[in-house]
Amino acid sequence: MRKLKLYLAGPDVFLRDATDVGRWKQAQCRALGHEGLYPLDNHLPKDAVAIFAANRALMDCADAGLFNLSPFRGPSADAGTIFELGYMAAQGKPLFGYSNERASYAERAAQTHGPTVEQDGVLHDRDGHIIERFAQSENLMISKAIRASGGLFVAMAEREEPKLASYGAFVACLTAIENI
Amino acid sequence: MRKLKLYLAGPDVFLRDATDVGRWKQAQCRALGHEGLYPLDNHLPKDAVAIFAANRALMDCADAGLFNLSPFRGPSADAGTIFELGYMAAQGKPLFGYSNERASYAERAAQTHGPTVEQDGVLHDRDGHIIERFAQSENLMISKAIRASGGLFVAMAEREEPKLASYGAFVACLTAIENI
Repeated sequence: MRKLKLYLAGPDVFLRDATDVGRWKQAQCRALGHEGLYPLDNHLPKDAVAIFAANRALMDCADAGLFNLSPFRGPSADAGTIFELGYMAAQGKPLFGYSNERASYAERAAQTHGPTVEQDGVLHDRDGHIIERFAQSENLMISKAIRASGGLFVAMAEREEPKLASYGAFVACLTAIENI
Repeated sequence: MRKLKLYLAGPDVFLRDATDVGRWKQAQCRALGHEGLYPLDNHLPKDAVAIFAANRALMDCADAGLFNLSPFRGPSADAGTIFELGYMAAQGKPLFGYSNERASYAERAAQTHGPTVEQDGVLHDRDGHIIERFAQSENLMISKAIRASGGLFVAMAEREEPKLASYGAFVACLTAIENI
């Protein structure tokens, strides 16, 4: 299998130990003969425009993306990570998602935005907004983009801190890339 | 100005009166000589794969996108909407964002995931995760993608129900397209 440039997207960049987490994930990529492109190297000292341009350039040169879709500040994944997944979906690149959370999106939304009400077979959150019920891990655009790209999604409860890094699911996902 | 096909993305599809909201927004587009492509027409009776394919086809044929980035189930915009913004960003299409919320992302995150702690000049939420402080309405990848595309972002408090539809900011944003 040829060496791949893998864009490592996720809310990992917002962890206190973001650099260590990124270095660890890059080492896992290297152990399998790939190169992990971690956006943190672009972050702290620069302004927002420079970070955007640098992250976009990393995505443009990547062969595929690994997206940490663990819930972040709500039932959904991190906004920046989702943006990047959409961006690479349009480029037709293989998308791989992983998460520290095995519950479906509907279950998570019910937990953070319940109590839910069912009406005419449709589930609503406490604000009266419809909750998608396709038994998927995320909004269907995300789940189905991963599927359509030929990639896959792995969810595993995480025991190691910081749990948001989702180490176990990351390794499972990375290993699976070998077999695709 | 030529007639544009405008993809109308947003959590509007999760409103009880999603169809009415979509029809109203499409009428506003028509009044300015444009065509509003509203993804709801793709939703209810189909399965998730069919909805994904239909929404993607709408984006592929759109000239530009209008994205309702009002906060949805947390401090960030709806996950599906963000995915679509990323997708159309990679296509190099003009992106226009609007929201019913004038507070910055950092202010919203402090509200939903506070109390915050400042350490060495960096702001952390209650889980110890860093809060971006670029005084922007959303994650920098979203804000800067809109800017880089030549589009713009409009935030206005909304008085009409359902507030999530963000009618006022939508009209302001749509009108601004005329002048770009």
